[in-house]
Amino acid sequence: MGLIVQKYGGSSVADAEGLKRVANRIVATKKAGHQVVVVVSAMGDTTDELIDLANQVTPMPTGRELDMLLTAGERISMALLAMAIGNLGHEAMSFTGSQAGVITDSTHGKARIIDVAPGRIREALEGGHIAIVAGFQGVSQDTNDVTTLGRGGSDTTAVALAAALDADVCEIYTDVDGVYSADPRVVPSARKLTTVTYEEMLELAASGAKVLHLRCVEYARRYNLPIHVRSSFSNLEGTWIVNDHPEGAEDMEQAIISGIAHDKSEAKITIVGVPDRTGVAARIFQSIADSDINIDMIVQNVSAAATGLTDISFTLPKSDGAEATALLKDIQGEIGFASLLYDDQVGKLSLVGAGMRSHPGVTATFFACLADAGLNIEMISTSEIRISVIVRDTDLEKGVKAAHTAFELDTTNEAVVYGGTGR
Amino acid sequence: MGLIVQKYGGSSVADAEGLKRVANRIVATKKAGHQVVVVVSAMGDTTDELIDLANQVTPMPTGRELDMLLTAGERISMALLAMAIGNLGHEAMSFTGSQAGVITDSTHGKARIIDVAPGRIREALEGGHIAIVAGFQGVSQDTNDVTTLGRGGSDTTAVALAAALDADVCEIYTDVDGVYSADPRVVPSARKLTTVTYEEMLELAASGAKVLHLRCVEYARRYNLPIHVRSSFSNLEGTWIVNDHPEGAEDMEQAIISGIAHDKSEAKITIVGVPDRTGVAARIFQSIADSDINIDMIVQNVSAAATGLTDISFTLPKSDGAEATALLKDIQGEIGFASLLYDDQVGKLSLVGAGMRSHPGVTATFFACLADAGLNIEMISTSEIRISVIVRDTDLEKGVKAAHTAFELDTTNEAVVYGGTGR
Repeated sequence: MGLIVQKYGGSSVADAEGLKRVANRIVATKKAGHQVVVVVSAMGDTTDELIDLANQVTPMPTGRELDMLLTAGERISMALLAMAIGNLGHEAMSFTGSQAGVITDSTHGKARIIDVAPGRIREALEGGHIAIVAGFQGVSQDTNDVTTLGRGGSDTTAVALAAALDADVCEIYTDVDGVYSADPRVVPSARKLTTVTYEEMLELAASGAKVLHLRCVEYARRYNLPIHVRSSFSNLEGTWIVNDHPEGAEDMEQAIISGIAHDKSEAKITIVGVPDRTGVAARIFQSIADSDINIDMIVQNVSAAATGLTDISFTLPKSDGAEATALLKDIQGEIGFASLLYDDQVGKLSLVGAGMRSHPGVTATFFACLADAGLNIEMISTSEIRISVIVRDTDLEKGVKAAHTAFELDTTNEAVVYGGTGR
Repeated sequence: MGLIVQKYGGSSVADAEGLKRVANRIVATKKAGHQVVVVVSAMGDTTDELIDLANQVTPMPTGRELDMLLTAGERISMALLAMAIGNLGHEAMSFTGSQAGVITDSTHGKARIIDVAPGRIREALEGGHIAIVAGFQGVSQDTNDVTTLGRGGSDTTAVALAAALDADVCEIYTDVDGVYSADPRVVPSARKLTTVTYEEMLELAASGAKVLHLRCVEYARRYNLPIHVRSSFSNLEGTWIVNDHPEGAEDMEQAIISGIAHDKSEAKITIVGVPDRTGVAARIFQSIADSDINIDMIVQNVSAAATGLTDISFTLPKSDGAEATALLKDIQGEIGFASLLYDDQVGKLSLVGAGMRSHPGVTATFFACLADAGLNIEMISTSEIRISVIVRDTDLEKGVKAAHTAFELDTTNEAVVYGGTGR
């Protein structure tokens, strides 16, 4: 008998049928002898509908009131889920973020969890109840106001609660049945990974894999809490996110690379003819950081000795492109650069794998396979367990496939199963 | 400068336009130099839609979870209203029942307010904010669970908050512009009352007038808090509910009767041939009270000396008719009565007025006018300031009109104005 935290996303509880299906799964877990805590998101499109309503009333809602509004969504789904479980003859109680003890800072819309004090959840479990907790929300330590955690918030709630309750596992239910070696829509021969390390998952998430949000993986790593990513539509084992690949695991025997991620959400800005003086790069990136724009990759060429000028390229979210360009134009006179190039036709391709540390040939193999596929590499960035390159966005999927094959990740004996029961 | 509590019902905030209109009215009150606390219901049909969702999931939702679900409705309307006020350049903060300090017992679905501790509301007002409070909801003292107050709950929230804040007035905004001497749909010549006493309003509410709920009037009377019932669609003065009619008030000069209420929601049960023994009536009504059925009027005839048998008639909500009939049949053998008559074709007509105390001719005038109109009186019940009679339901409206004329309540110089501005 263990303590299991399960998290269900909005698509799993989009309507009464979904709620009933999820209730059945929860009750099955309880019947298997476990204590169960469930974190649930708002139903289907509820959050978007509430945002629409807010926009009808004002173009600039305050963060406090927007959080008050949006948290109604989980209130609805969690109460209905508790009822659906009750209808199966089991006792469930729902709790808001505040009632569950999710204490945050006061940054409305993207609050950070400061502490989790799940006294009422423990009480409910000890009383034999299933506890249903609203994802995505908390209460601010200073002002006692309702807060929301921002993107990936419900996953983070689940992991944080699991850590505070010392749960055996945090199960994240999604509409895919695990983490794949590449996006199965791009690479049909992608394999489902049995295990992924926290480090690998962090790199994959940062590189564009959508399965889990960075914050929740960071949280799990800090508390060494196993995450099990699986489908709410099947009973298949999904992917375990853990500290280390198990000794002699099937994946480990061959896999230098765990997964290949790709991302088309970034743009590239090149600042041409930058004077190669101390402090110039700092001035440029400070002005962008001041506007809360996240820079991803940066490349600076060696300056041509004759001119004393260099080019600096960096990538950033496309959605921040216009603002960053405007900021740079504002300081063009001060810095004295020649011109700006903005390019949003780029894609990022990343190899991630803990095995990379002990296999120095990875980079060579990677670049060779891209060259064979006719791809031109425009930028390169590496970490200890990741290599990312920028290529033309039209070449991106070709590159993913080529690398997947080059690193022998292709499989034929597994199929991606959505909503099925066998494989 | 005063402190005003305003309550807006669901029909006043049914959509974005309604929210904006109400926001304008609130801001106008604030600009006039008042501190403003607003109690708001869920938007339009939200509550019904949430109940529908619950019914899709289970036929028997628990009270705790149903309350958790339904309170999402006010959470949405109050946050949107605060945003709409923000959009007009004024600062508003919304508060749940719990945050506003509305402390109740644990009776989910019809919790009673135990205490109101509006520390956060005071703080918000002192900070220059408009405070928006969720109606209909509170938090239970014992379990810290979310509760709802049941029918008329938002009115009760408003009056309770106004009392706790020592407000100057509690304004209840509805879709009619005050309390009328009779239902204007039945009596087009009905007059809007300038003032009504708490006692009169209690009798009117208990007699079928829908404007205000009994509980909220009781609360206001206990704290001697003036209520101003008015329309959110106009700026007309509405009706003041106060302790006493003001000295020499226009209404007072002539009005023995303040208002005439009618009610078609009751049925009449007659128990025929009841043995006239001590304890028999007690046994009958105890069995009904045990099932939480509210009896209204009771009439027992003098028993015929020859038989030692009597008939007992009483009225009760039609919705409880089937259950009460079944209960009585269960004890028929024990009591030994002859038969049961069930009649749901009855209507109740009530005259209410504080002036009745000092005008002994009221009953005679009332009965005479009903006789002139050809109505047969089937049951009679009186209080110090009310006379109610049961008649055929098809005669009810005729009776209301006849009494309205007989007591000289008809007016020609006032019109019922919905959404207009002049009269």
